[in-house]
Amino acid sequence: MLKPLGDRVLVEIIEEAEQKTAGGLYVPDSAKEKSQRGKVVAVGSGKLLDSGERVALEVNVGDTVYFAKYGGTEVSVEGKDYSLLSERDILAIVE
Amino acid sequence: MLKPLGDRVLVEIIEEAEQKTAGGLYVPDSAKEKSQRGKVVAVGSGKLLDSGERVALEVNVGDTVYFAKYGGTEVSVEGKDYSLLSERDILAIVE
Amino acid sequence: MLKPLGDRVLVEIIEEAEQKTAGGLYVPDSAKEKSQRGKVVAVGSGKLLDSGERVALEVNVGDTVYFAKYGGTEVSVEGKDYSLLSERDILAIVE
Amino acid sequence: MLKPLGDRVLVEIIEEAEQKTAGGLYVPDSAKEKSQRGKVVAVGSGKLLDSGERVALEVNVGDTVYFAKYGGTEVSVEGKDYSLLSERDILAIVE
Amino acid sequence: MLKPLGDRVLVEIIEEAEQKTAGGLYVPDSAKEKSQRGKVVAVGSGKLLDSGERVALEVNVGDTVYFAKYGGTEVSVEGKDYSLLSERDILAIVE
Amino acid sequence: MLKPLGDRVLVEIIEEAEQKTAGGLYVPDSAKEKSQRGKVVAVGSGKLLDSGERVALEVNVGDTVYFAKYGGTEVSVEGKDYSLLSERDILAIVE
Amino acid sequence: MLKPLGDRVLVEIIEEAEQKTAGGLYVPDSAKEKSQRGKVVAVGSGKLLDSGERVALEVNVGDTVYFAKYGGTEVSVEGKDYSLLSERDILAIVE
Repeated sequence: MLKPLGDRVLVEIIEEAEQKTAGGLYVPDSAKEKSQRGKVVAVGSGKLLDSGERVALEVNVGDTVYFAKYGGTEVSVEGKDYSLLSERDILAIVE
Repeated sequence: MLKPLGDRVLVEIIEEAEQKTAGGLYVPDSAKEKSQRGKVVAVGSGKLLDSGERVALEVNVGDTVYFAKYGGTEVSVEGKDYSLLSERDILAIVE
Repeated sequence: MLKPLGDRVLVEIIEEAEQKTAGGLYVPDSAKEKSQRGKVVAVGSGKLLDSGERVALEVNVGDTVYFAKYGGTEVSVEGKDYSLLSERDILAIVE
Repeated sequence: MLKPLGDRVLVEIIEEAEQKTAGGLYVPDSAKEKSQRGKVVAVGSGKLLDSGERVALEVNVGDTVYFAKYGGTEVSVEGKDYSLLSERDILAIVE
Repeated sequence: MLKPLGDRVLVEIIEEAEQKTAGGLYVPDSAKEKSQRGKVVAVGSGKLLDSGERVALEVNVGDTVYFAKYGGTEVSVEGKDYSLLSERDILAIVE
Repeated sequence: MLKPLGDRVLVEIIEEAEQKTAGGLYVPDSAKEKSQRGKVVAVGSGKLLDSGERVALEVNVGDTVYFAKYGGTEVSVEGKDYSLLSERDILAIVE
Repeated sequence: MLKPLGDRVLVEIIEEAEQKTAGGLYVPDSAKEKSQRGKVVAVGSGKLLDSGERVALEVNVGDTVYFAKYGGTEVSVEGKDYSLLSERDILAIVE
């Protein structure tokens, strides 16, 4: 498995079950928008401050998160899609 | 629901009831300018300073805010439009 | 009314009564340069420093200010034109 | 008059009496290079440091200064040309 | 051998044994994607903070790492391919 | 004369006596490369740190210096060519 | 000789004896890649931190170093090629 460094987080991407256009039509797979939801599976040691202190991340393993469209690096491990993201690219926790 | 991280804020966008041009004509929906007003529905834990301290946000849940045109990420949850914004993209509280 | 956040200032724009070209001709309204003068009607809580301290703004409600051409966001409230500006975009106080 | 904010300085531009090309010819007014010399007529309260301290400017009212070509904002007040500059755009004091 | 400076790390690139396209076809060597995996063979003295303190790196000699596609400098020493990377370009440790 | 501000330095440019191309030919004046050598004739009060402290410059009046090609502002005073440079644009002292 | 300032280092470039292409052919001189190896012949006084402290460089006179392709300024002194580099452009010490 991958252990993220610093303020990075490993997120398993949750495929959206279906995507409907405004008119109710289903879009074929190739035209689907990329999912911006995922489950946190590993977190780094925290952000290193200029003071030398590390600050623990706000997200925890198991959280479902909503992340920014651009910013992460996609990795595919054993057929599953993950994204390695800086915590600043995680916009919110889905509750 | 979405719980914003750090200095981010979740704002429910308030659709402008109507938009008149200078000449008094109504503009059709597709030409409408995007609303820059919204109601704060959730706030993050605050901005992380270099000292490691977090500073609480200036806006609170329930505030009506005026935000910058560009900068937020739009999210649609159960038919309602939201914007996830950094507090620095909120220009003023509407009183 | 709008209550600016942080180091932002709400300025009511003062329309220049007339604009003369070097040759003494009056320019029609559409060719007028945008006014860079305004009256401060509300100020934010101050600039947040890295130390967590807030520094009060140098301008006060009632000041007439000269501001940078680009940088602010224009807002129209009840027929009056305002600009929401960072204090760093205010160049000088008109005395 | 204008009272500059922060680390800004108000400089009255000194028109160069004449401009000669390398070959000794006089250039007509419209082709003149913009003057980079001026007299300081007002100074701001100083630069705000991250510590919250303000540092007094190095230039004083009455100094003749040599400033960078780009960076200031030109203002015309009662027929005189001024430039509102950050102190970092003032390169040297002319002695 | 090369001894990295500061927050830099020397990584021996692990060639991917084979690369299959989605359809199961093998891609010829020239079309292969560059490997993003490697073994750490040397680490620098750590990141220099503004306080003058050095912070030891999170990766150690012997770690297998997953690194960003762009950011490192490739070096070839005695027929082996290495990358000299800043620690911030190392995304995760492969466990 | 000009008294530089802050971390700036006034350097009198030393014209290179002649410039030979690789083939031994002399290049006409207009094709000459700009000199990057000069003598320091005045130095500023030093660089202002975020702590409010000023750090004296490393170069002194009388030093011959080698400076970066781009970065300074050229000034011509009484027929002599000078450059006003930030100390960071001075690469080395010629000894 | 040249005495570098601050965090700069003077490196005498080591010409690569020969350059073979993958197919074993010799490339003519004009097509040679620029060498990225050199011997440190002088070092600056160190990097100035925001605290006002100077941190001694990690490289010493006599070290053979591997440096980044872009970033330094080339200088030719008495027929020898040197590069004036910031320490951050030195990637590793060759041991």
